[in-house]
Amino acid sequence: MSAKVLRDGRVGSLVEPDDRGLAYGDGVFETLLVHEGQPVWWREHWNRLLRGASVLSLPAPDELQVRRECESLLGKTDRAVLKIILTRGSGGRGYRAPVSPVATVVVSSHAAPSPVREPIALRWCGTAIAIQPALAGIKHLNRLEQVLARAEWSDPGIFDGLMCDTEDRVVCATSANLFALVGGRWLTPGVDRCGIAGIARAWVLANAPGAAEADLSAAEVSHADALFLCNAVRGILPVSRLGLREWTEHEAVTGLRRRLAEAQPAFAFGEQ
Amino acid sequence: MSAKVLRDGRVGSLVEPDDRGLAYGDGVFETLLVHEGQPVWWREHWNRLLRGASVLSLPAPDELQVRRECESLLGKTDRAVLKIILTRGSGGRGYRAPVSPVATVVVSSHAAPSPVREPIALRWCGTAIAIQPALAGIKHLNRLEQVLARAEWSDPGIFDGLMCDTEDRVVCATSANLFALVGGRWLTPGVDRCGIAGIARAWVLANAPGAAEADLSAAEVSHADALFLCNAVRGILPVSRLGLREWTEHEAVTGLRRRLAEAQPAFAFGEQ
Repeated sequence: MSAKVLRDGRVGSLVEPDDRGLAYGDGVFETLLVHEGQPVWWREHWNRLLRGASVLSLPAPDELQVRRECESLLGKTDRAVLKIILTRGSGGRGYRAPVSPVATVVVSSHAAPSPVREPIALRWCGTAIAIQPALAGIKHLNRLEQVLARAEWSDPGIFDGLMCDTEDRVVCATSANLFALVGGRWLTPGVDRCGIAGIARAWVLANAPGAAEADLSAAEVSHADALFLCNAVRGILPVSRLGLREWTEHEAVTGLRRRLAEAQPAFAFGEQ
Repeated sequence: MSAKVLRDGRVGSLVEPDDRGLAYGDGVFETLLVHEGQPVWWREHWNRLLRGASVLSLPAPDELQVRRECESLLGKTDRAVLKIILTRGSGGRGYRAPVSPVATVVVSSHAAPSPVREPIALRWCGTAIAIQPALAGIKHLNRLEQVLARAEWSDPGIFDGLMCDTEDRVVCATSANLFALVGGRWLTPGVDRCGIAGIARAWVLANAPGAAEADLSAAEVSHADALFLCNAVRGILPVSRLGLREWTEHEAVTGLRRRLAEAQPAFAFGEQ
């Protein structure tokens, strides 16, 4: 990992101990795939970062400066994962935000994950996601629920875990959105009560005919005709197993993956 | 503010950009009053820190080392506020925790707040607290709800705001616990669904005869015979106003403040 810390026009390598991102998780982040040296879906990621900043009333960072520092960090790297954290910057003690906060931006470059060549196995997580409409949809830094959920298993055969909200509706995996094929339509939980409005999720909703948001129970997900996870680093990941339920490959998933690979070569099958 | 960052036996002044405290709010914190050069309720704060570390499976820090660094930070300071943050330390990208995390501890010293000599005015916050039993009670770093709530007002005449959970039960103020005198007993919301198990709150529950946990609606709080807030920096703060409702001083609050001042001279009236 290599990282840069941008603050008030200066570029450093470390974070102040009074940063509100550390004190309160007072910020948002984005995780982007880099392919052929270019961030994939940059516009979509940047827009979600701004949407999150707007919900939290964070100062909007300078896109050109951040993009420039990302490129300098990547150098000649062909494929990687880029992470951008935006926080409200240094603050005094106490929840009250400074009147004129100076944002901190942390950009970091990480090795791209190993390709996933087979359909994945999932489990159910016991950790529930709290219902908090005021923070739903944005990719904020308060992620203890995901940390607790991810700590529930260590079996490397399990790729991710599905989480329900505290009222037993299915929400998402710890690090991906979920789609379930039910009655011939791709359904995914809404993100107005909790959960994150994923970038890959938005692509599927816009490009899979009839795809829609819907409340889903654990039973409905287990009985779906097909499942996949999606996120902006992995693209579309077909699911072969959830607990005891197993699925064979489904043409509806294969077709959608092919269309995504056509739209975004970063997600071409051979590279996943 | 002055601060030290402890990691793996070394003492620095800055935080690594991949610290999981920043990335996910993956940690807990404590805020202590320092009086006559000594942290007040150190044992209680340290025990709560350990309880939070246990809930999150964080490595327990070395108490003697942290205490020594706190004392070195305070020097000859007589009265101050001391903050201790414990995080899971550096981590790779992704929610999965390192198998052998090396904790980060940030200790910082801040000016003690100006004494509050008059009963305080409160408001209701629109921001609700999500119900999350898995994190309830501990003082973790996921505090965006409090940040949003505290941003709801800027009137310096309002000392704090009361928050309800998403099912309309009263929980606490943004930075203090609440007690309401109802039917001759001091009642405070439970902290098993959400909220923080405050150190001053525990003192009141143990020392005010008949004090107990109870579900409280906004109406019950507004109609209470007396209210006070409490936290480990301010002690007990009588409430004179909540929205349109006003209260005159109540002997039950005055008596309890006197007893707290006797037990902990840091909270003696003249100094508040």
